[in-house]
Amino acid sequence: MDVEQFFDQVTTVRMNADRSALDIIDQTLLPGCIKRVELRTKEEIWDAIKKLRVRGAPAIGVSAAYGIALLSSKIPATNFESFYASFVALKDYLASSRPTAVNLFWALNRMDAFVKDKKEESIPKIKEALFEEADRIRDEDIQISLHIGELGFGLLRDLKKDGQEIGILTHCNAGTLATAKYGTATAPMYVALEKGWAPEDMHVYCDETRPLLQGARLTAFELHSAGITTTLQCDNMASILMRSGKVDIVFVGCDRVAKNGDVANKIGTSGVAILAKHYNIPFYVCAPSSTIDLATSTGEQIPLEMRDPDEVCEMWYSQRMAPEGIDVFNPAFDVTDHDLISGIITERGICHPPYEEAFRGLGIK
Amino acid sequence: MDVEQFFDQVTTVRMNADRSALDIIDQTLLPGCIKRVELRTKEEIWDAIKKLRVRGAPAIGVSAAYGIALLSSKIPATNFESFYASFVALKDYLASSRPTAVNLFWALNRMDAFVKDKKEESIPKIKEALFEEADRIRDEDIQISLHIGELGFGLLRDLKKDGQEIGILTHCNAGTLATAKYGTATAPMYVALEKGWAPEDMHVYCDETRPLLQGARLTAFELHSAGITTTLQCDNMASILMRSGKVDIVFVGCDRVAKNGDVANKIGTSGVAILAKHYNIPFYVCAPSSTIDLATSTGEQIPLEMRDPDEVCEMWYSQRMAPEGIDVFNPAFDVTDHDLISGIITERGICHPPYEEAFRGLGIK
Repeated sequence: MDVEQFFDQVTTVRMNADRSALDIIDQTLLPGCIKRVELRTKEEIWDAIKKLRVRGAPAIGVSAAYGIALLSSKIPATNFESFYASFVALKDYLASSRPTAVNLFWALNRMDAFVKDKKEESIPKIKEALFEEADRIRDEDIQISLHIGELGFGLLRDLKKDGQEIGILTHCNAGTLATAKYGTATAPMYVALEKGWAPEDMHVYCDETRPLLQGARLTAFELHSAGITTTLQCDNMASILMRSGKVDIVFVGCDRVAKNGDVANKIGTSGVAILAKHYNIPFYVCAPSSTIDLATSTGEQIPLEMRDPDEVCEMWYSQRMAPEGIDVFNPAFDVTDHDLISGIITERGICHPPYEEAFRGLGIK
Repeated sequence: MDVEQFFDQVTTVRMNADRSALDIIDQTLLPGCIKRVELRTKEEIWDAIKKLRVRGAPAIGVSAAYGIALLSSKIPATNFESFYASFVALKDYLASSRPTAVNLFWALNRMDAFVKDKKEESIPKIKEALFEEADRIRDEDIQISLHIGELGFGLLRDLKKDGQEIGILTHCNAGTLATAKYGTATAPMYVALEKGWAPEDMHVYCDETRPLLQGARLTAFELHSAGITTTLQCDNMASILMRSGKVDIVFVGCDRVAKNGDVANKIGTSGVAILAKHYNIPFYVCAPSSTIDLATSTGEQIPLEMRDPDEVCEMWYSQRMAPEGIDVFNPAFDVTDHDLISGIITERGICHPPYEEAFRGLGIK
């Protein structure tokens, strides 16, 4: 399978050919079963987002955009006021599927502003334009990932020695399955494939990423499916792996970057960064510039969500793996100090410390 | 439940009252079910060691000693040659249960040397003496753990501030369930309980310890059962936990210590040590002096066992959690560099760098 066939098979979300349904890969069935499903009703779309059949901030945004375009295309209204009232009801309904997913609201609000801007147009034209705006949201995401991938690929090329594989460690899933195409942390590897790198040129080590196992279920699945040499390890094995000299660079994604360059990302990221620094391995964060939040001065100000203890004690298991009544510490994210980060790769360029200046230099506001 | 009741309930192995059976806690049923079982036949004893119903190097040694004493008590022979032939056959049989368990052979060989030394005695006297020798093996293990615990407790007392709990992080299970009584890494906490510390005086954070989850299944279970304030976290959460200031000291067990102080222990230990150094938290290894191997000059010379990929991808789970055919890196142990270790607590005293000198100073050969 070449890389374009691979992307076609795992595309998180797209409109089907006759624009009658959203065509998604059901991520809750991975890695055991690769199944695409078609979503036609508002309930089906809501449920797919709610149940994480589609997940990852950019992929949720693209799904919401296509979802509202699809549902709007079936609104029977013939005047704008009536059309818009139905549009807002659909938008509010979809927004209720995952109340903490910022990209969901961002995409729906962008579609909303777009509709309001078109109120002088005919309803059929507005319906068509909504599909085109959803396409733009998807294409912009692809371009952002591609630029991050090209910049990251430059780092891989610089580190690569002839005849030797380059070892890359990643944590969680900031992959194609979280975005419209290249992912963020995985973009450098997919760009390398598109540039003709062979399986023996690179070797990606995936942290399984407890407790939700996105590294094992999703990242190892997608890289392995794309034909990249891939190894899976438990999170606590990253240290000895780095010690063995097999890891040349680390790429991780990110949820939010503070003004000083502190990064909030999936739980465990800060530990990987500390190990990388100890073993003198470059540690890069792949971050669309939209995740850089200059209103947050440091990572200390980023609230960290605490999640259900059952994710640690029971989820996935055939029986409970911890004593009844045990207290559990289960934060979803952690904060990586900026001084542990070699660079933050945005679609506009690679930022190096001091980060605030670097962000300003790239025109990030 | 007071601490002595607790120890009685979870004792890894003991003879029953009329010396007709080994009485063990079946560790394969923990943490869901606390069940003691009696082992009477050689097959039952062999199977319990093989299937990890009893596990942990010291506990296996004690079990083998009591096992061979029990089985020898039923040998019908009336002269030494015939008795000894049966003894050796039983010993070889038990030794075949876990071919990599050094303590199994150590205990059986000690019992063997003991029998050979008694060949002038009557068979009934030898049988009685074997039970007594097994008791000594158990009592020596208890004393070693107790001394380690007292030294570790001294560290806790020194760090403790009035009216505040002291936070302790541990990895894997070097607990009562691995030994005859106090454990090694857990010994300071159990000694603290015996000295009258209350639940609010200390708080132990247990790494779950993937992939075999000894931290979740065993350590969290035993500390929680003993009434110690206990929290469970995934291995990748140790960094943010330390960053939060909740961890004042780390205690881990060990499998083998090299002459320079490098320590081989359960996979993930080296990562915890690097995090502790980064966050400036004291990191102590609890090591019976028998684990210090002066014939091994550095950790580089310690071979690290690679284990079955299924432990990472399938074990415990209700369905496979990684793609079919994925390569897996699954080392059972890692090596922690001596310069990451604040001290190595042996039953003879606490060793500080340079370790080779410290070992010599304690008369360790």
